[in-house]
Amino acid sequence: MNGEILALGTELLMGELTDINSSYIASRLPRLGISVQHISLVKDSLEDLVGALELAISRSDIIFTTGGLGPTHDDITREAIGQAVNEDLQIDPSLAEDLRKWFRQRGMPMPAANNKQAMRIPSAEAIPNSEGTAPGWWVEKDDKVIVAMPGPPGELHNMWEQKVAPRLRARNSGQVIVTRNIKTINIGESALAEKISSFTEGANPYLGIYAKRDGVHLRIISSASTEKKAREMLAPIEKGIIEAVGFYIWGFDDDTPEKVAAESLLNAGYTLAVMESCTGGLLASTITDVPGSSRFFKGGIVAYSNESKIENGVSRELIEKHGVISEEIAKLMAKAICTRMNADVGIGITGVAGLSEQEGKPAGTVCLGISIKGKEYSRELRLPPRREVVKTRATATALIELRRKLTQA
Amino acid sequence: MNGEILALGTELLMGELTDINSSYIASRLPRLGISVQHISLVKDSLEDLVGALELAISRSDIIFTTGGLGPTHDDITREAIGQAVNEDLQIDPSLAEDLRKWFRQRGMPMPAANNKQAMRIPSAEAIPNSEGTAPGWWVEKDDKVIVAMPGPPGELHNMWEQKVAPRLRARNSGQVIVTRNIKTINIGESALAEKISSFTEGANPYLGIYAKRDGVHLRIISSASTEKKAREMLAPIEKGIIEAVGFYIWGFDDDTPEKVAAESLLNAGYTLAVMESCTGGLLASTITDVPGSSRFFKGGIVAYSNESKIENGVSRELIEKHGVISEEIAKLMAKAICTRMNADVGIGITGVAGLSEQEGKPAGTVCLGISIKGKEYSRELRLPPRREVVKTRATATALIELRRKLTQA
Repeated sequence: MNGEILALGTELLMGELTDINSSYIASRLPRLGISVQHISLVKDSLEDLVGALELAISRSDIIFTTGGLGPTHDDITREAIGQAVNEDLQIDPSLAEDLRKWFRQRGMPMPAANNKQAMRIPSAEAIPNSEGTAPGWWVEKDDKVIVAMPGPPGELHNMWEQKVAPRLRARNSGQVIVTRNIKTINIGESALAEKISSFTEGANPYLGIYAKRDGVHLRIISSASTEKKAREMLAPIEKGIIEAVGFYIWGFDDDTPEKVAAESLLNAGYTLAVMESCTGGLLASTITDVPGSSRFFKGGIVAYSNESKIENGVSRELIEKHGVISEEIAKLMAKAICTRMNADVGIGITGVAGLSEQEGKPAGTVCLGISIKGKEYSRELRLPPRREVVKTRATATALIELRRKLTQA
Repeated sequence: MNGEILALGTELLMGELTDINSSYIASRLPRLGISVQHISLVKDSLEDLVGALELAISRSDIIFTTGGLGPTHDDITREAIGQAVNEDLQIDPSLAEDLRKWFRQRGMPMPAANNKQAMRIPSAEAIPNSEGTAPGWWVEKDDKVIVAMPGPPGELHNMWEQKVAPRLRARNSGQVIVTRNIKTINIGESALAEKISSFTEGANPYLGIYAKRDGVHLRIISSASTEKKAREMLAPIEKGIIEAVGFYIWGFDDDTPEKVAAESLLNAGYTLAVMESCTGGLLASTITDVPGSSRFFKGGIVAYSNESKIENGVSRELIEKHGVISEEIAKLMAKAICTRMNADVGIGITGVAGLSEQEGKPAGTVCLGISIKGKEYSRELRLPPRREVVKTRATATALIELRRKLTQA
């Protein structure tokens, strides 16, 4: 079944708001047997939305809209759907009563404008909104389905989980799409493509290659009449890829560098502390994004200057000998923070995050040091010399390398 | 001039990636006299993209594409543009030489696949990419312009700022749209709307209200035949808003909490150090996102546990007396880190980032402490109890409060 998403809102076309609703919906459709073919962002203009709906009805089986269900004059989704399917809107007395009740419970009179939200066309069934005043619409007509949902993500998510997804699940009888993400590091996009070229020919399963901050990702997409069949078609390709490039793989599906690092630490029963310079706190912040990180994370120090590295146990003499941006100092930082915070594992990061070279090291040079129970490892990276890229890629690489060392050890 | 954006990528339609490029581009077009009418997300399918390009050419003056310029088989933007404008692709020897040079500088041979990135059609001019191997394309044909840019945001942003925006600026001769963002904090969306209701009636200038992580933003959008006229129309509204709600305003336009905090510190000639608990390093990381932050930032400590707070100079007795999540301890953390890192200004953050209450404080409780030359301030926040929200909002609020204290002092 082909799906299409229309995200309403002039602010989306002005770039004032990033559309996060479409990816929320799109990511949930393949496992419901719906393949998204089109996503469009549409202005709060009746004419534009009617046009977009007519096109969507002509080419897709099911259309999802977000936004435009509020009470104000630029909330035009109800009217546009009415025009697109040639039906008139009328007040639904029971919806109007629900709305009055919503306001009554909050001790407020219902503004006249909200009457608009009690309107519907004969083919529309209201979808209750537990988080706000705007009911959604479920429209079925001439074998097409239109699902209109509110724009505020909290309202959308609740309506999706409580009402829309269960209904779609019950209807699903078509193709099921299964995906598998395989995440690599330390190999470039084209080198990886060459090594797995024998798997990239087919359309189903389809194999995509994507360069990301945390390395190059491979995604296998498989479609069949049942989930089991789709998985069976996918499995040999996954196996072949693991055989061909397993050395570079650090994770699958929703794995993140911080998640795999956290799992490895918890498996080993080790605690972690970090001393970071050019990543400026991002390493610690990324680690503490993991729920439950307090079980293994002892803490971190952002040691920007040489002085603060020395105060925290890195030898001044060795900084002078090796230069502060060196694998030796990264290892010393890792070791020093283990001692200072009484941790089993330490990470040290030193490098050039800014745009100009430092101590003869070009911008983008980063040295990682890892200390595991007194044994040190290190690596030098050359990253694109932009502050944000250096910070995020050095952080991701440090966490992935930590996982690698812990699982090898 | 009407603009249209096509964001390429099957992963966008699978919901595996949120399209942040379109809002990046869309937000920059109004001031260049380009009004975005359509944004579509398109699969990595030659047929789909050719269709989308043909439709876009039929209805828009200028079309921006993102993605699909890599070296692999599913990078189809070059080929699709060729088909849409009926031109053949050929290797451009000078682009091929640039690419070989790019790989040579990194000590790698160029994979054969990358030859694809040296292809162009006669109407296309290559746009250099300072961050990667994929050159963009600037295509002009039959009064239409197609600008093809790479998908990785870092590459896109650089190409936009260095090459595309200057060229669009030079061409602009139509209506000019000028915007002004006014950023507030410590006041809710509807309370703010009430205070400025006399300015929200007009369509031009238009006044929008948006709730964001760092407070509520107001955006005035003014359109006229020249930039000067548009600014003149905008000015009285800005003035009126400042008169009405000036107390809550902390920044304008591209100001960020870290930027205004950095400016205030540099103006005062003060250095900064931080001790953070529930923000887990995000405060330090956000500060070090500011170019030149090493001039004022002494460093930070992520002190997750009570023990590490005590080791770093917070009194055990007072933690036991007040509880670790208290304004008193936040102030002590701020004071202790000033001493420890010999800084003029300290920030301390302690709170509940996780989902469960701690010491009887509900999830989402955060205490901020600020110490400026030995004088302390503090504040308690109640934030929505989601880890990411707590971290980002506590960080933004701490930086905005720091700026407020420094400019008041």
